[in-house]
Amino acid sequence: MKNWIFILVCLPFFKLSSQSENPPNFVVVFCDDLGYGDIGSFGHPLIQTPNIDRMAVEGQKWTQFYVADPVCTPSRAGLLTGRYPIRNGMTSSERHVFFPDSPNGLPLGELTIAEILKPLGYSTAAVGKWHLGHLPKFLPGQQGFDYYYGIPYSNDMDSDKWGEYLEQSEDPDYFSNTEFFNVPLIENTDIIERPADQTTITKRYTEKAVKFIEKNKAQPFFLYLAHSMPHIPLFVSEEFRGRSKTSLYVDVIEEIDWSVGEVLKALEKNNLHKNTVVVFTSDNGPWLLFKTHGGSAGPLRAGKGTTFEGGQRVPTVFWGPGIVSPGVIDQMGATLDLLPTFASLSGAKIPTDRKIDGHDLSKALTQKSESPRKEFFYWAFAELHAYRNEQYKVHIKQREAIHYGRPTLELDSPELYDINADISEKYDIADKFPKVVSKLLNKMQLHLEDVQDALPDQLAGRMANE
Amino acid sequence: MKNWIFILVCLPFFKLSSQSENPPNFVVVFCDDLGYGDIGSFGHPLIQTPNIDRMAVEGQKWTQFYVADPVCTPSRAGLLTGRYPIRNGMTSSERHVFFPDSPNGLPLGELTIAEILKPLGYSTAAVGKWHLGHLPKFLPGQQGFDYYYGIPYSNDMDSDKWGEYLEQSEDPDYFSNTEFFNVPLIENTDIIERPADQTTITKRYTEKAVKFIEKNKAQPFFLYLAHSMPHIPLFVSEEFRGRSKTSLYVDVIEEIDWSVGEVLKALEKNNLHKNTVVVFTSDNGPWLLFKTHGGSAGPLRAGKGTTFEGGQRVPTVFWGPGIVSPGVIDQMGATLDLLPTFASLSGAKIPTDRKIDGHDLSKALTQKSESPRKEFFYWAFAELHAYRNEQYKVHIKQREAIHYGRPTLELDSPELYDINADISEKYDIADKFPKVVSKLLNKMQLHLEDVQDALPDQLAGRMANE
Repeated sequence: MKNWIFILVCLPFFKLSSQSENPPNFVVVFCDDLGYGDIGSFGHPLIQTPNIDRMAVEGQKWTQFYVADPVCTPSRAGLLTGRYPIRNGMTSSERHVFFPDSPNGLPLGELTIAEILKPLGYSTAAVGKWHLGHLPKFLPGQQGFDYYYGIPYSNDMDSDKWGEYLEQSEDPDYFSNTEFFNVPLIENTDIIERPADQTTITKRYTEKAVKFIEKNKAQPFFLYLAHSMPHIPLFVSEEFRGRSKTSLYVDVIEEIDWSVGEVLKALEKNNLHKNTVVVFTSDNGPWLLFKTHGGSAGPLRAGKGTTFEGGQRVPTVFWGPGIVSPGVIDQMGATLDLLPTFASLSGAKIPTDRKIDGHDLSKALTQKSESPRKEFFYWAFAELHAYRNEQYKVHIKQREAIHYGRPTLELDSPELYDINADISEKYDIADKFPKVVSKLLNKMQLHLEDVQDALPDQLAGRMANE
Repeated sequence: MKNWIFILVCLPFFKLSSQSENPPNFVVVFCDDLGYGDIGSFGHPLIQTPNIDRMAVEGQKWTQFYVADPVCTPSRAGLLTGRYPIRNGMTSSERHVFFPDSPNGLPLGELTIAEILKPLGYSTAAVGKWHLGHLPKFLPGQQGFDYYYGIPYSNDMDSDKWGEYLEQSEDPDYFSNTEFFNVPLIENTDIIERPADQTTITKRYTEKAVKFIEKNKAQPFFLYLAHSMPHIPLFVSEEFRGRSKTSLYVDVIEEIDWSVGEVLKALEKNNLHKNTVVVFTSDNGPWLLFKTHGGSAGPLRAGKGTTFEGGQRVPTVFWGPGIVSPGVIDQMGATLDLLPTFASLSGAKIPTDRKIDGHDLSKALTQKSESPRKEFFYWAFAELHAYRNEQYKVHIKQREAIHYGRPTLELDSPELYDINADISEKYDIADKFPKVVSKLLNKMQLHLEDVQDALPDQLAGRMANE
């Protein structure tokens, strides 16, 4: 009897000890411009996503999960560093994101998730779109990644056929010519294909991801799988083209779901699923400007480029049968939180010489404890637009859509929304709750003071020769 | 060995024979003004509906399921008779629905689901809101129901405090006085309470439903459980008030979900779940006019009173572990289809002396065969507004909202939407597909000819003495 008690008492320690010998693997599947409403389990009536839906049932479906910024480059910087992009100059009023003639990248002094995991012996790979500087000195290899395979900026860049594309793309089934966009495909630092054949790109990313998982089955790894889809121009493989019988956009998402299934299969086949956390999410809301080539924010207002919920709240699922306790989590979380969460789950050190904006969600994941995130600051184009605490959201600036001709609207007076009772931000109640408004504005003021030592704009500027 | 083969060969017949001896029970849970987006598994970020979500996982979640009309009375007539309400005079340009001074009801010559099941020995009950005529000669007892317990019309009717209610109800947590609305609670034909205490009404409906199931466990039954919630004014029991910490609307839906759980429990406890089909749905979209007291249509356009998808597409789940084959069904279905479907599953006779607009979905339910519904006609206020085939929807008339001051808009030229690629009906493509437009308009013309022999408007008129 005594022996049994001894064993029972010690079991948790044995488990802990074996865990610290084998810290968990992390896989982040990061889509491009996927909207809150574009997944079956997040309410899309037609897009079939059985693999992501399975992750949601077996893992945690987060319904109030935010990205650091409503456009591409800053959103990615925020996820990888755990810091609001304003801090490291990764948001810009001038150019919004990096372009093929941008001279800069994510400052090398920034620490990414890959860099904080490396000292623990993690193998790391970035597969997919990077968009944090395309020059060799800014590619993933300089930011803690052992391997890189993907495109360095958006799949619509470097094109002299934009006009032609725009004219034809109104048709929901319009399939662009891959030659229209002179985007390079890079492996480590070498351009291996130009223009990248985008029709097979989701498939090839998936093959590289599966290969990386298999190669690293004996050691901890971090895989950052950043799909270039469903950013316009939409491309899909022959196997998926027309398969949904609905639209090209739906085909594209269903291929991403297939890709997710391949990743899960690879983890299960190699018996890694019990010690891996897979996160599925998106970099910002749907690009509504492109009509049926853009997605849906579901019930949320507006989309990409805006600080309404449709721009920054994204469909997010955490899966990990040995680690993540299943359930629907309707508390707040953010991509900013991944760095501290992965650090906590692995035992990695969080940098203490800089401000980290992320919160550690590990207890929410493992024990369904209350999320420590109680607030969120909505930045866009280097300006603070809005702030949310648990119940209320105040807006001082707004954009209804990303539209380069129209500037940000400075509101004459702040707008206030009860973001839980009014999920679509339709009913401004600022007049009724002036004290709430001033409390929230005060928080915004304090936050602005807190980011005073931000780096200068890294996105601005053009290279002379391109 | 021979004996085994004999048994194996005969098993399906034994099953069939036992099924025809015990035709399945049917339970229809019909909510009032619940929107497409108001259920967790249909994409609401905050409303927790574990019981309905369980039905969706174990049964069939239908994502393109329609009600016969976007307002209350005609929608109910359509569900119970399987006929577009224009045919039996149950839709009106004058009064829209029945009121406490209406002299009429669903014509007694109409045959309801209860009436077609009665000859097979079904026990039948209507619990909840009726709204098909409040005079004793039009109550459920006259339409095939053995038992009735509920309110005869909407829960906001018969009130001289409307102004007071409207003024105060902007607050998401505003809880009206049950005395404001002089709605009677009726058992069979007797008024047993007036005004009905609406705070306990969802709970009391549930108790009556469970009692009916238990009483009839030895014989086939049809239970029509038509909740009065979440139609405004919102009421909820003490147990649920404030429980969601989000809003009164959320509390109300969570009490309905609790009610669904009690029904499932009663079926399981009495071992009836394997021979019962439970349908969960709503009578029309959310009443958006009432802001945070109305629900959400999720990604769909507009709400109650309109023929946009938000008005007529409702969150629908079929559950029945012994009968319904699990899955997400993104084909079309309608409440009009329940009558022929129940007839097919039970062996009841479908009336042949009148036009039935419903399709038999039984094979879709049991075998996931293709849904036979390939089109839908959108009627509102006795006018044909729109028509959909599988891919396209054409509008000739529209309302953006139910607003009694504003008439229906006759469009200068038809609008066409690719309803699958453009789920929110945002991008009119009529100019690009004139042939599709004329094909669809032609179908509308044929349908109008087909309903020429409709009964006169039953909803119009007022009683002199009230």
